[in-house]
Parts: sequence; structure tokens; C-alpha cells
Amino acid sequence: MDVEAARARLAALKVEARALEREIKAAAGHARSPLAPASFPELPTVKGARFAAAAAGVRYRGRDDVMLVLLEPGTTMAAALATSATRAEPVRWCERLRGLPQSEGAQAILVNAGNANAFTGDAGVESVAALAEATARAARVSSEAVWMASTGVIGEPLPHRRIEAVLDGLVAGLAEDRADDAARAIMTTDTFPKGAGERLTLDGRDVAVAGFCKGSGMIAPDMATMLAFVFTDAPVERDLLQTMLGRLCDRSFNAVTVDGDASTSDTLLLAATGGAGGEPIREAGDPRAGALEAALSRVMGDLARQVARDGEGASKFVTVRVTGAVSEGSARRVAKAIAESPLVKTAVAGEDPNWGRVVMAVGKAGEPAERDRLTIRFGDVLVAERGWVAPGYREADGAAVMKADEIGITVDLGLGEGEATVWTCDLTHGYVDINADYRS
Amino acid sequence: MDVEAARARLAALKVEARALEREIKAAAGHARSPLAPASFPELPTVKGARFAAAAAGVRYRGRDDVMLVLLEPGTTMAAALATSATRAEPVRWCERLRGLPQSEGAQAILVNAGNANAFTGDAGVESVAALAEATARAARVSSEAVWMASTGVIGEPLPHRRIEAVLDGLVAGLAEDRADDAARAIMTTDTFPKGAGERLTLDGRDVAVAGFCKGSGMIAPDMATMLAFVFTDAPVERDLLQTMLGRLCDRSFNAVTVDGDASTSDTLLLAATGGAGGEPIREAGDPRAGALEAALSRVMGDLARQVARDGEGASKFVTVRVTGAVSEGSARRVAKAIAESPLVKTAVAGEDPNWGRVVMAVGKAGEPAERDRLTIRFGDVLVAERGWVAPGYREADGAAVMKADEIGITVDLGLGEGEATVWTCDLTHGYVDINADYRS
Repeated sequence: MDVEAARARLAALKVEARALEREIKAAAGHARSPLAPASFPELPTVKGARFAAAAAGVRYRGRDDVMLVLLEPGTTMAAALATSATRAEPVRWCERLRGLPQSEGAQAILVNAGNANAFTGDAGVESVAALAEATARAARVSSEAVWMASTGVIGEPLPHRRIEAVLDGLVAGLAEDRADDAARAIMTTDTFPKGAGERLTLDGRDVAVAGFCKGSGMIAPDMATMLAFVFTDAPVERDLLQTMLGRLCDRSFNAVTVDGDASTSDTLLLAATGGAGGEPIREAGDPRAGALEAALSRVMGDLARQVARDGEGASKFVTVRVTGAVSEGSARRVAKAIAESPLVKTAVAGEDPNWGRVVMAVGKAGEPAERDRLTIRFGDVLVAERGWVAPGYREADGAAVMKADEIGITVDLGLGEGEATVWTCDLTHGYVDINADYRS
Repeated sequence: MDVEAARARLAALKVEARALEREIKAAAGHARSPLAPASFPELPTVKGARFAAAAAGVRYRGRDDVMLVLLEPGTTMAAALATSATRAEPVRWCERLRGLPQSEGAQAILVNAGNANAFTGDAGVESVAALAEATARAARVSSEAVWMASTGVIGEPLPHRRIEAVLDGLVAGLAEDRADDAARAIMTTDTFPKGAGERLTLDGRDVAVAGFCKGSGMIAPDMATMLAFVFTDAPVERDLLQTMLGRLCDRSFNAVTVDGDASTSDTLLLAATGGAGGEPIREAGDPRAGALEAALSRVMGDLARQVARDGEGASKFVTVRVTGAVSEGSARRVAKAIAESPLVKTAVAGEDPNWGRVVMAVGKAGEPAERDRLTIRFGDVLVAERGWVAPGYREADGAAVMKADEIGITVDLGLGEGEATVWTCDLTHGYVDINADYRS
């Protein structure tokens, strides 16, 4: 076939392929990520936390799109929130709550999917105030104990009356075992609901940690904000909980990246109900604090990795580990430079062991690095060391690693003790499909 | 057709399409960017600068892949170089030359395509030294007056003897009117050679400014490094030339981004031969300095925009303009955050006037911005103002702007006087194709 004929045939194929893709998408919605876990996990019961979901029709039809959590009196709450200069109204509302003294009364979390209530001017402020009041009435809590989050399109006013209309039903439906329904109700472009939990014993008492989140990887607006809600029935004093959350967030949700874009609505709430009983944990020195933080770290790490596994268009799950940096912060910045590099991510998509792009990403990170001390591994395969390709390295070995669904890229900078891990996914045609065609 | 049948048909189409694409690519090389200019411009003659190109077979076959520039005695040289921690050997060599006092003797520039001589350990250092010596002998200049750049694959030793073998031929072929050959010889994934120039009069003397560059947009390694060489026959004192270059670079090559990835080999050299005659321009206050800098700025801006027009897979040329920032630096960082956002870039590829993503990118830039002062325009269409969609905005108007090949995104932050412009292109399936398949 000559080139002109090949071009013509290709153009015809593309037209037919586009039509088929539209048909398949319409029939199936977003297909479940190939990297999804087999099923939603059985979450342990967190005493003092009850969940409900309902269909308010904010934007979606035929599915739940609002969830409510009611937390018993005495619950302490910590929050990590988007810092974007254009952050959404519910984020600003939560910022305010975080700054207030918390009463001993019950607290609530109200979340909707389909509309982010972001960049909506005064109407957005009014929606938040109206929902706080309505939830306070329905759930019998103070309006200043109603935490909120919204995820979905930007710039359209939130039709908050539709949510108000389902609040009584939500309160009536609250149950300890409905966290999975809540996890489904907050999904947007997510292809699977994300949950994790575990049980532990603290000082002889059974304690549960459970959480769920949404985020289709890009950690960005338009339906792809990251929201996470984590609960424990351990009793934890509020300041300590907030301190723990900062550390936990750095090693879980802040260690996930899909495309480096940051949402206007990212919200992570951590609630400790105290339902397991016992004296409140007040200090980091309390032996229970370490055990609880370790459990929270595992649960939040699991949730965060599920976000990368659901990255838009993802076909590979990538763990970038950087060791030997001058500090933990430096290691994290180098790891992010690798994980966010479009060139590294497309190489992974193409199953190409292109270590030169890793070298480039290390170099551009702006952190201390010396070429002649760099060691790079793909999986267990030593690829490069001391400023050049490793003597025993064979391209076929690197290529074999890249065929897997889960790929490790490890860089040792050889300078110090700083270490960090970042999770991401590859950059595929699927990402371009989803984001170039999203609203049209 | 049911979904399963549609999927099967789609898979078959994709297999056939891939085969056709390989066939077309093999036959045609990379297709010329749809955003390319009609032809290479007629460059003015820069007195005192001669050019030559040759085929050394470093990696490519059947094309020129080495170029030499010889600059008459008295030429001053300024350099802007990659700062990556993993920068290549020729970059380190040029750094050293920049730090030396420059003799009055002739200077040379030797550049090869196909191999970046980066991450090649001691072998890389030896290659650079050997080439400097060989060029010095062939061109009768000091080895410390031989500037060098290499672009191509990373981590493979540079076969420098192949280049040495063509040096005598290069010297014999030097001519004032062969800049276009030189521009072609340094191309890698570029789909067209990039040149720009103009003539001006300084104090009654005819002066020429001409330059060429290569870079297929991603400003990144593996054949996509940005190299630029700009020449004038105006006489300019070296320190002043270097000062000018810093400013010029910020407003030209540093204002181009394709994917935010930074090369290990970026090199920009600016040579002033003095061939036009007259007293050297020594101070910024010299009236000739302003006129010359303005001409250089136009030429370098033109070259930089050509790089974005040749961005890998580009189908749209995008000009991001930010005004009303608290400073020029702040404006540039906001503009880059927009221009490098994968979400903004995929929206442009999809011709989607998705201004929410621009809001997100402004927010994540980490620069002073207030939602209620933001104004966003697509082309001339006012999209958003004061924290919400503009009252008169219709989606159809935004969509019409996005259909064009060239798109302007303008954001006014409403805070100060800082302004900056950044050029980029969209993020398409073509980008994923090129970078996921590049080495395979």
C-alpha cells in the first residue's frame, strides 16, 4: 500500500474507532480501572459513626450523590484542606470550622458529588450557609459542627435545595454499616469505590480504623477532586489528632500524584469518635498514639494508592522511591519530579525502560543530586550507577520489568538519609481521551 | 451492535491502525507540524559568522548531523545553559568557557545531533576534550574557544571519532549563507528547521541579527533538547551581551513550555562578531543597545514560538498571557502553571472552553491571586470575572474560539502591574504516541 492510501485508510479507521468508542462509553460508563482491587473491602465498624447516602439529583441521575456522616458527641475532628488560591466554598467553610473551638456536641459531614460549588461567587457562600443550617436542623447538631465537601463541575451554582430535600431521609437512614454506600455516593469519574480499614487493640480495647475516599487520580477539578474521610473510635485529643494528620497526609494523600494538577476542593477529614472507650490520647508519648498512627498510616496509604490505581486512563501503577537524599523533603521533591514527568509517564505507558528520562527528571527537580552518585533501578534490575548505565544492565531485563502492571522505579541519590515514596500511574491515550472529551 | 462486539471490532481496528501508523511513519518520518511556518526564512548575512554542516553518521544515516560555526576574531559570546543537576558534558564544558576570560581570537561552535553525550561518565568528558582539540586544530582556534552542544539519546557514549573525521570537510565548507544547512543538521524529532532574522540600522551602520534553533517542544532529553544559536554583527562588549541574554532568554526561550520537562542539554549561545564595524557597545545606556536588544528580542521570540509550534503532537498553538500580577515573576509562574497543566492542555486539544481548569491552574500556582478579582478570556471572549462566569458569556462563544489553530488564554489577576506571556501547545494523542513509542 502506498503512503497516501495508508493515510486514507487510517483516517477511515479513526472515524469508525471514534464512533465505536462513543458507543462503548455510552453503554458502559467509564470502564473499571484494570488496576482496581477485586472488590470493596469489608470495613470494620467504627463505634460512634453512622453513614447514609441518597440520590438528590444534583447532577447525576439514577444514583446516590449525597452522603451524610453523623458522629456522636465528643468526636474530635482534624482536617487537611486544599490551599489553592481559588479553593471552593466548602473548603473555606471547613477552614473556618477548623479554626473554631469544637463543642462536645455531635458533628456531621455532608458531601455531594456532581457540583464542586467552586468559583460560584456569593451564590456559593449562600449555598454553604443554607446547607449547614438545614443539616443542623435535620441532624440536631450545631451548624458550626457541619463539615462539608463538594466535588464536580466548577462555576455552576450548587442547587442546594435538592440536597436539603433529602436531608431528613439521610438522617433516617443513618447506619454504622453503610460506609460503602457513602463511598459510592461521592464518586465522580472514579471507576471504583475506595475503602480501607483495620482493627487493632489499644490498651486492651478493640479499636477500629476505617475510611473511604474518591479521586480519579488527577487530583484536580472537574469531577476529579480528592476527598477522603477517615474514622476511628479511639479517643484522641483534637490537637494531637491534627498533628498526626499532618504527618499522615504527607505520607499518604500528599504522596499520590497523577498529573500534578491540584484541585480547588481537596478535603481530608479525620474523625476520632472515642466510641471505643478509654481515656483520651493526649500526647504523642502515649504508647497508644504510635500504634494508632501506624494503623491510620496503613489505612490512609491504602486509600491513597487506590487513587493512583484509578488514575484517569491508568494502565500501570508506579511506585517511585527515592533514597539517599539530603532530607525527606528533598527526597519527596525528587520523587514527585519523576512521578509527574510526562516523559517518564509516557515511557511507562509504552513499556519502555527509558532510564534517561529518569535522569532528566532527577536533574530538573532542583534538589541536591550528583550524577556520579546516582543509582537507578527498575524493579530489582540495576539500570544505572555512578553516572552511567550499569555494566551488567541489559535492555531486555529493563523491558521485562516494564511489562508488569505494577512497576517500581527506585533512585538512590547517594548523598544522605532522606527517603520518600510517591505513587502514580502512567500517562496514556486514555488520559487524553477522558480529558479532551470530558465535557463535550 | 452490542458492546462486546463493539469492543472486539475496536480492538481489531486499533491493531490495523497501529500497523498503518508504523508504515506511514517509516515512509514519511515525523510528519511536519500543522503549525509550521510555510518555509525556512531568508536569513540576513551576519558578517564574521560562517556556517557548515556535514553527515558524520553519529546516529542518523543519510542526513547532516553535525554543524560548525566559525566566528571571526573579536567575537564576544554569551551563554545561557541548562542548570539541571544531571546536565550533559558539553553543557559543563560551555559553563567552563563562560567563566574564562575570552581571548581576541576566533571562536567556534560545534554541535551534533543524535547523541546527547549525557550521563556517559568519564567517556563523556574525554569526548568533549577530544572534540575541542580536534576542532581547534582544524579551525585554527584555541581549544578554549570551541563551544559545544550535543542533542540526542542519553547514556550512550558519543562516537566522537566520527565527528573528528568530518572536521576538515566542515572547515572547507564554511560559508556565510549556510545557516539553513546548519539549522537542519541539528534537528532531532523536530518536524521543521527553525530560523529567524532581521536587519536594522545602528548609528548609520547596517546590522544583521539571525539565529536558528531546534527543539520539538518538550524541552527535554531524548532528542528533544532545545538548542539555539543567535548571531549579530553588531559589536557588543561581552559583559553587556551576557546581561542582555539573561533578559532576552526570560522573554523568549524561558517563556516556552511544552510539558514542563527540562532538558539536560539546553544551550543558548549569543555571538556578537562586530563585523558590522563601529565602536563596541559597552553600556546599557548606549542608544544602540536598546535597539539591538529589541531586535534580538523579536528574533529570539520568533524562534521560541517556533519551538512551541513544533511541540510533540501539537495541534494548537497557545499563548497564555497573565496580567495584573503582583510582579513579573509572579505573572510568569501563573502563566506557566496554566501552560503546563495537563488538564488545560487536554482541554485545548479537545477544543473544550473549560475555564474551570484555568481557574484550577491559577489556584495551584502558589502565587497571590484572589478569586473575586480574576478575569479570564479565551481569545477576545470574556469568560469569567469577579469569581464567577461572566454574565454575558455563552459556551458557544468560547467553543468557537477553541476551534482555531491559535488560541489565546488571558488571565487578569487584578492585583498589580506584573505581566508575562508564555507560549505552549496542546497535549494530544500524538504526544503520547511519540513518547510512548519513541525508543521502541
